[in-house]
Amino acid sequence: MPLPEKALISEIRRLGHNRQKRLLATGIGDDCAVLSASPDQDFLVTTDFSLEDIHFRRQWHSPESVGHRCCARGLSDIAAMGGQPVALFLSLALPEDLPQSWVTRFILGLTRLAQKHGAALAGGDTAQSSHGILADIILLGRVPKGKAVLRSDARPGDRIFVTGKLGGAAAAVVKMEKRSKSKLNPKEYRRHFFPEPRIEVGRVLREKELARAMIDISDGLSTDLAHICEESGVGAEIDSERIPRAQCGKSKREVSLDLALHGGEDYELLFTAPSAVRMPRSIHGVSVTEIGRITRRNALLLRMGNRTEELIPRGWEHFPRG
Amino acid sequence: MPLPEKALISEIRRLGHNRQKRLLATGIGDDCAVLSASPDQDFLVTTDFSLEDIHFRRQWHSPESVGHRCCARGLSDIAAMGGQPVALFLSLALPEDLPQSWVTRFILGLTRLAQKHGAALAGGDTAQSSHGILADIILLGRVPKGKAVLRSDARPGDRIFVTGKLGGAAAAVVKMEKRSKSKLNPKEYRRHFFPEPRIEVGRVLREKELARAMIDISDGLSTDLAHICEESGVGAEIDSERIPRAQCGKSKREVSLDLALHGGEDYELLFTAPSAVRMPRSIHGVSVTEIGRITRRNALLLRMGNRTEELIPRGWEHFPRG
Repeated sequence: MPLPEKALISEIRRLGHNRQKRLLATGIGDDCAVLSASPDQDFLVTTDFSLEDIHFRRQWHSPESVGHRCCARGLSDIAAMGGQPVALFLSLALPEDLPQSWVTRFILGLTRLAQKHGAALAGGDTAQSSHGILADIILLGRVPKGKAVLRSDARPGDRIFVTGKLGGAAAAVVKMEKRSKSKLNPKEYRRHFFPEPRIEVGRVLREKELARAMIDISDGLSTDLAHICEESGVGAEIDSERIPRAQCGKSKREVSLDLALHGGEDYELLFTAPSAVRMPRSIHGVSVTEIGRITRRNALLLRMGNRTEELIPRGWEHFPRG
Repeated sequence: MPLPEKALISEIRRLGHNRQKRLLATGIGDDCAVLSASPDQDFLVTTDFSLEDIHFRRQWHSPESVGHRCCARGLSDIAAMGGQPVALFLSLALPEDLPQSWVTRFILGLTRLAQKHGAALAGGDTAQSSHGILADIILLGRVPKGKAVLRSDARPGDRIFVTGKLGGAAAAVVKMEKRSKSKLNPKEYRRHFFPEPRIEVGRVLREKELARAMIDISDGLSTDLAHICEESGVGAEIDSERIPRAQCGKSKREVSLDLALHGGEDYELLFTAPSAVRMPRSIHGVSVTEIGRITRRNALLLRMGNRTEELIPRGWEHFPRG
């Protein structure tokens, strides 16, 4: 992102330094904040903007898809901590000339996905927007006390896994950029238009203690792996041939390695596990693939056949500026 | 607001109808949502947008004031339920060319007020904005189980009270509209630039069971009184001569009745109490003034000396469109 996001987060960390340590189990920098709710339960909170022309475009995305994707972003953060979704809040600012039918269809897309995962739409705010549709989604989840799976617990020797297949969401963006006039068929690019957050998989990984550190792939594999390594103080080496690539479009063609490595918004899970753990090949019908190992040396490496090169996290801009 | 806010809220209520009734004590339509957190405690959640040129203007408001006002909006919703603030989340989208110093000062203004009331900045989201600064503030509070003071509990015969003085925040907006080039002195218009949410007062009103129904005055007295009446299925009659008017500006002139009745963003509390309750004249140094009574008849009335007229809620646009 062109924003100095890291600088901003460290600024917030510094200035927001809190006097409520007992309440706040984990703060800024993970997928969710972890709050002590009761003696046996923690609450998870995550917020995510969905802004027109930054995260979606009205000519590309149906209102149902925009609502679904909004909600998926938050749910995926809950999944990445092994949590159970509880409630959803929506702050929504709308341009004056937006048809009511757009709003109805947007909320339908959003609540359909939320209810599927047991989250109630519980409140929010409405305002007028002078430029475009602005939505902020707040997801509240729960997890047994002290059991949230963090980004920061990866250890040297851990094996690295991903769920599902990668690059499918980004492939749709590349395609739409090329032919900006005709719409894509959402059925051929479901991972982009109607991504499925991995709530059940995240819960199983937490319950069975299969995952030691976890994150959801929203910024792209390379960037999200870098987040885990940074927060855990470790490095990683992954094998390009083992990265599961999505197949999409009419022809079901496999996406490029580049998209699988750097494309964002797949909302799959990336996690590490102690080497002794017996990992199932799939959980709730979602494949689980081993792609590499956590290392002691503070570097990200990509094996390409016989040679190994540095893996540079490229981040993910939702849309190249149009 | 020009937005069909009511239609939107009822749409959300209808579509978001939830399967988690046990968790969700009170839903959309009050100052905060009330969530069952544990056997002895409820959580309060509120979200509030602060959008450039809708809620603030960069040429009028210092970054510290914008941060403070953002935070005050959320804290005031917690105060209106008699709650204790716990944690704060910030979704922040910034234009690419915004100086880092603006962000630092904004976060300082925000966290200073939050920490004063015991709320930790615990997380959020950052994004790029294509038009102006966009902030969404999420406040999390707590209240003993079942004790949140709702809008919907006013009963015929209840006396109506307000804290502090009204119209001071709106007076600043009127003044700035008139002389758009020179800045106002924030010290002369504190209620606008650095409003104080009534957290302690709200807590005392709840603890001592002094308030039966409560709301914060963010949309203006007339509109917020209408909210209480609507949610409680009652009417109200207030006396124009008893409405406490703010004094502001260099001359400390009293604001017009119009501003006291319809001006928004004072963040004082409006509440009703059973007629037998002995109400203190001030709580924690903040005055408490009786202004009227809740009636059975479904109408809002304003007494003006000897005659009584209908009180039409005018709502509050943060800024008239420039």
